[in-house]
Amino acid sequence: MSDTPEANATPISWTGGGDGFLTLLDQTRLPESVIYVNCQSVQDVWDAIQRLAVRGAPAIGIAAAYGVVLGVRDGAMLGAEPPARDPAAAREAALAACDHLATSRPTAVNLFWALDRMRGVVGELDDEVPPAQVGKRLLAEAKAIHEADRAQCAAIGRYGAELLGEFGSGAGILTHCNTGMLATGGDGTALAVIFALQKAGKNPKVYADETRPLLQGARLTAWELMQRGVDVTLVCDSMAAPLMRDQKAQAVIVGADRITARGDVANKIGTYGLAVLAQAHGVPFYVAAPTTTFDLSIESGADIPIEERAAEEVAEPFGRRTAPEGVAVWNPAFDVTPAELVAGIVTERGVISPVSEEAIRANVGAVPA
Amino acid sequence: MSDTPEANATPISWTGGGDGFLTLLDQTRLPESVIYVNCQSVQDVWDAIQRLAVRGAPAIGIAAAYGVVLGVRDGAMLGAEPPARDPAAAREAALAACDHLATSRPTAVNLFWALDRMRGVVGELDDEVPPAQVGKRLLAEAKAIHEADRAQCAAIGRYGAELLGEFGSGAGILTHCNTGMLATGGDGTALAVIFALQKAGKNPKVYADETRPLLQGARLTAWELMQRGVDVTLVCDSMAAPLMRDQKAQAVIVGADRITARGDVANKIGTYGLAVLAQAHGVPFYVAAPTTTFDLSIESGADIPIEERAAEEVAEPFGRRTAPEGVAVWNPAFDVTPAELVAGIVTERGVISPVSEEAIRANVGAVPA
Repeated sequence: MSDTPEANATPISWTGGGDGFLTLLDQTRLPESVIYVNCQSVQDVWDAIQRLAVRGAPAIGIAAAYGVVLGVRDGAMLGAEPPARDPAAAREAALAACDHLATSRPTAVNLFWALDRMRGVVGELDDEVPPAQVGKRLLAEAKAIHEADRAQCAAIGRYGAELLGEFGSGAGILTHCNTGMLATGGDGTALAVIFALQKAGKNPKVYADETRPLLQGARLTAWELMQRGVDVTLVCDSMAAPLMRDQKAQAVIVGADRITARGDVANKIGTYGLAVLAQAHGVPFYVAAPTTTFDLSIESGADIPIEERAAEEVAEPFGRRTAPEGVAVWNPAFDVTPAELVAGIVTERGVISPVSEEAIRANVGAVPA
Repeated sequence: MSDTPEANATPISWTGGGDGFLTLLDQTRLPESVIYVNCQSVQDVWDAIQRLAVRGAPAIGIAAAYGVVLGVRDGAMLGAEPPARDPAAAREAALAACDHLATSRPTAVNLFWALDRMRGVVGELDDEVPPAQVGKRLLAEAKAIHEADRAQCAAIGRYGAELLGEFGSGAGILTHCNTGMLATGGDGTALAVIFALQKAGKNPKVYADETRPLLQGARLTAWELMQRGVDVTLVCDSMAAPLMRDQKAQAVIVGADRITARGDVANKIGTYGLAVLAQAHGVPFYVAAPTTTFDLSIESGADIPIEERAAEEVAEPFGRRTAPEGVAVWNPAFDVTPAELVAGIVTERGVISPVSEEAIRANVGAVPA
């Protein structure tokens, strides 16, 4: 993986054809530095996902899809010899890349969904398709996933702005973590709604939770909103409750990493607490996510595996030790918000409200192949 | 103010007689460094309180009381000539010190209470008492305040351990901010309860909120508990809700900076959210505080002034910028938890439960002079 300090149009981009490379805006360096990293191998992409250089459920899926394209070329890292010399080897390398990339993060369903789409392409390839064509076909699929996500973001923004527009001009909207262009292939999910409100002249007053431990809200959300001229105020996660009590926040909108058939929502740690606080204060709590975020094979949120991350993220934030050496830490990366606390889910196909298994199935339908 | 890197028995201590000096454990340096600072002037003490070198409502009161003793000597900084040459000048310097120290932090009532006690001593002095005697009398009063706080902490620990002991051995107890020996003249308030539980063989399993923005939980509470062999797990503030839902925390206990006549509790930002979450999960929420924390002149928490602190505490934690330059920040240092969410208040005179104005007046009675 190499660093490219020069500016780039989008956080995720592909250069060249089937033998090209992936460029990611390194989100761990924001807002101090705008640094792009080039991923030339499956392992580069795996590392980028694992160390959160790319994060946000849709963005992870897109990056992983491009990673599979790299897999055709660098099968060596996964056991085969590069470059994949025959059609079977190319297909095997692609499938091995899918398997490997699936281990990078455990919670984001978009990752598995994107990799399944890539596997599907491999499965449909004729036995005689030459390696270069395998790469080309996989790249076309990754680009289709990327483009579809862009379109989904735009649709989520439209539906969500209609929903939240009802709170009037200058309404206070609280959000958590980062769900914008850094987290997706387009304008984002929850932030797409805010960008659409802004575009519609509603001048939302956004409160961004800093989102400990990794401060995606402070580092990324505040940065994105300021870049696009949205009125944003940064708060610590623990300040959400008085914000609601003081009626500074009229609504909460967040993204999702996985949503079950009944509407339980796995999302960044802190989301569940916000939802409970929102209910206690009569503030509606919304989720914005593409239909690819739904995992209809899971009924209850209790069945979603929750990634627990390293103690250092809490005890040694950003390289400075702030807790005693050797202190025990509990650091779950996600939590699950039960459907009962969710006033509505905005997808690219409309708004699910009230949230029920029937309403979800009607909106999501068959997840697009 | 000078730095003394050597170890010292207690976080607050006085060396010498009426012309001695105050030594404070610099809490802004923990847990990385154990550094003591010597305060030789009123301004040194004012600065130490303002920059949180000493913090915690009772500790602030004790430090301020000692600060008044320094005022007799260094009246110069406040307009008089040092050393106070005549009885009237000495008394004036002490009163000026009281006025100045009262401006160091706006929320902690113990500060005003301690300064009122010091003013009372000055008022009772015979017109002819020589300056050296003024200093001696004020020092005796400061030491009495300090010693009374030590005894109060012990009594709070006893009553609280009786109360929380009902949750059995190994019960999970969630706490917020720092309320131990660093925050008081003794074992603390909420932490005194935990230390007493530990001493009684109840082996509490403590979860310490890191307490953004200044991380008193990570830096101070985890340190104190580890030093005394208590089982402590550090969590981000946003992890409290899943802790409660997963039934890892059977009770919450926190300190207080000010409690009104009806039992509304001003405490570190994040406390109110915890109380709402506790109620939603059926987890009892307790407050531990000496009777000096009560301000019976105020009926409702809405009348408590809430200190708003600098944006940098949130946007630039511990010297590293993590949010974009120029981002707007809302950084209230405290919030107010309404009495309705408080299951009980532990004071040095027993447990107030259920919380009502009558029960508070019965417990607190006349605040000891």
